[in-house]
Amino acid sequence: MKTYLDCIPCFFKQGLASARILGTDEKVQKRIMDNIAEAIPSFHLTSSPPEMGKIVHNIIKDALQKDDPYRELKQRSNSLVLSLYGKMKKEIDSSDDRLLSGLTLSIVGNIIDYGANHTLQPEKEIAEISRRRVNKENGPNFQYTSFKKSLERARLILFIGDNAGEIVFDKLLIEEIRELYPDKHVVYAVREKAVINDATIEDARSVGLDRTAEVISSGSVIPGTLLHQCNEKFVSLFKNADMVISKGQGNFETLSDEPSPIFFLLTVKCGVVANMLGAETGDIILKENSNLR
Amino acid sequence: MKTYLDCIPCFFKQGLASARILGTDEKVQKRIMDNIAEAIPSFHLTSSPPEMGKIVHNIIKDALQKDDPYRELKQRSNSLVLSLYGKMKKEIDSSDDRLLSGLTLSIVGNIIDYGANHTLQPEKEIAEISRRRVNKENGPNFQYTSFKKSLERARLILFIGDNAGEIVFDKLLIEEIRELYPDKHVVYAVREKAVINDATIEDARSVGLDRTAEVISSGSVIPGTLLHQCNEKFVSLFKNADMVISKGQGNFETLSDEPSPIFFLLTVKCGVVANMLGAETGDIILKENSNLR
Repeated sequence: MKTYLDCIPCFFKQGLASARILGTDEKVQKRIMDNIAEAIPSFHLTSSPPEMGKIVHNIIKDALQKDDPYRELKQRSNSLVLSLYGKMKKEIDSSDDRLLSGLTLSIVGNIIDYGANHTLQPEKEIAEISRRRVNKENGPNFQYTSFKKSLERARLILFIGDNAGEIVFDKLLIEEIRELYPDKHVVYAVREKAVINDATIEDARSVGLDRTAEVISSGSVIPGTLLHQCNEKFVSLFKNADMVISKGQGNFETLSDEPSPIFFLLTVKCGVVANMLGAETGDIILKENSNLR
Repeated sequence: MKTYLDCIPCFFKQGLASARILGTDEKVQKRIMDNIAEAIPSFHLTSSPPEMGKIVHNIIKDALQKDDPYRELKQRSNSLVLSLYGKMKKEIDSSDDRLLSGLTLSIVGNIIDYGANHTLQPEKEIAEISRRRVNKENGPNFQYTSFKKSLERARLILFIGDNAGEIVFDKLLIEEIRELYPDKHVVYAVREKAVINDATIEDARSVGLDRTAEVISSGSVIPGTLLHQCNEKFVSLFKNADMVISKGQGNFETLSDEPSPIFFLLTVKCGVVANMLGAETGDIILKENSNLR
């Protein structure tokens, strides 16, 4: 998708939230806002929002003089969600439909943006998850039946991850997929380099995702996935996969125009995407891209 | 008050909303956003938000090559609210406390920003007014008892207006004040020049406010009131008035640090001001400045 004018105020909001969570003082925060402002006139609306996300991230990196300012936060996110793993596994164990339960947890896991809103209170986090509105009715924005059919038929499945912490929820889902269909080959792709709180190979390994799926780097250095920026292996897998599972809004924003068979799993985080999907901010989405147009 | 970093995304939101309501195309809207971005680095946080409001307004004026782009909208706002005058007068007639009723209408009139969200549906507007949460309990954010006491004692009252359209609500309130206390001298101040949808002398005259109070220009050319930018007559009145009634958030943002006896009547339109007041966005406020610190 292109960038909407409504995304511009949001770039500043995100930049400010990031600067604050990373513990900068007001002077540095103003400089970050000024630098984002300076980048706006040369940013074209034909680019996708995660491309601006990358620019904002670079501004923050420069201001903090750190190559991976979110490193510690990402590690804490991973540990935090790992500490909830047992509880979530029990939730799946006690459910009628293990796949649906794992799927829901994985999408809901995208709601809690551990990078942007890190409370580090496991009990509260799990309560938050249960409180959220989860509409699992089959419908245009929760295509569980299609997802299951697609999964049954697929041999090669490419899963594109999003945030640190959230990857533990994905691990649970992939475990269910592998339990149901042990013959499937599941590849889990993460970002090439640290960008905001997105998961990298280091994060995937630290939560043991490499024991559940083949973990690769997509080659992407933005908080999304633009095929022309990805590495050869990823592009080849993307083109040959029978099913692509794309997590989060950043991947949605960059892959929504692709013709391949993709299921987008995300929670809606802004009005622009809500509008595109006919949904509301906070909604959980499971949607096939053939259903987007 | 100073400008908070959180105001920066808002300047873009306001600029975009204005550009859209004034019927510009996306290309012009992007140019307006770029120009706002270019103005950010040289804007100091020690300035008040309405000073940036003025800069945004100038950018829009330049882009549209119009000296008063809101002129027609303001005229429609004035006519629209005038068409509701009879209904509102009846509402006051049927109330137990005419002053409280007039006061509430005047504050609620600040909710509906005719400049920013002009539906031009009188019936809907009046329904909107009744639907709104109006907490008239005496408390730190609705100091009706103090207001009434202050009014009783005052001889010279300076009323500082805000938006076109809204001024009709103020007219109703001033009529009640004059009915209760015919000996008070009420001066109603408006902006010197057209800025966004703020009322000017032309607007005040068009709704007949000059028949209810002495209407003057404050000399202000920003969507707020900075004393050092105001004309001599206004400053003298401000200093000698026994009571100042300040309408809207722009006047609050520029006058909140003044030591004179001011009652702020506004509806809270953003999180920053809500935070300052210990209120929520959408709340109606009647607060004496001595109670702010």
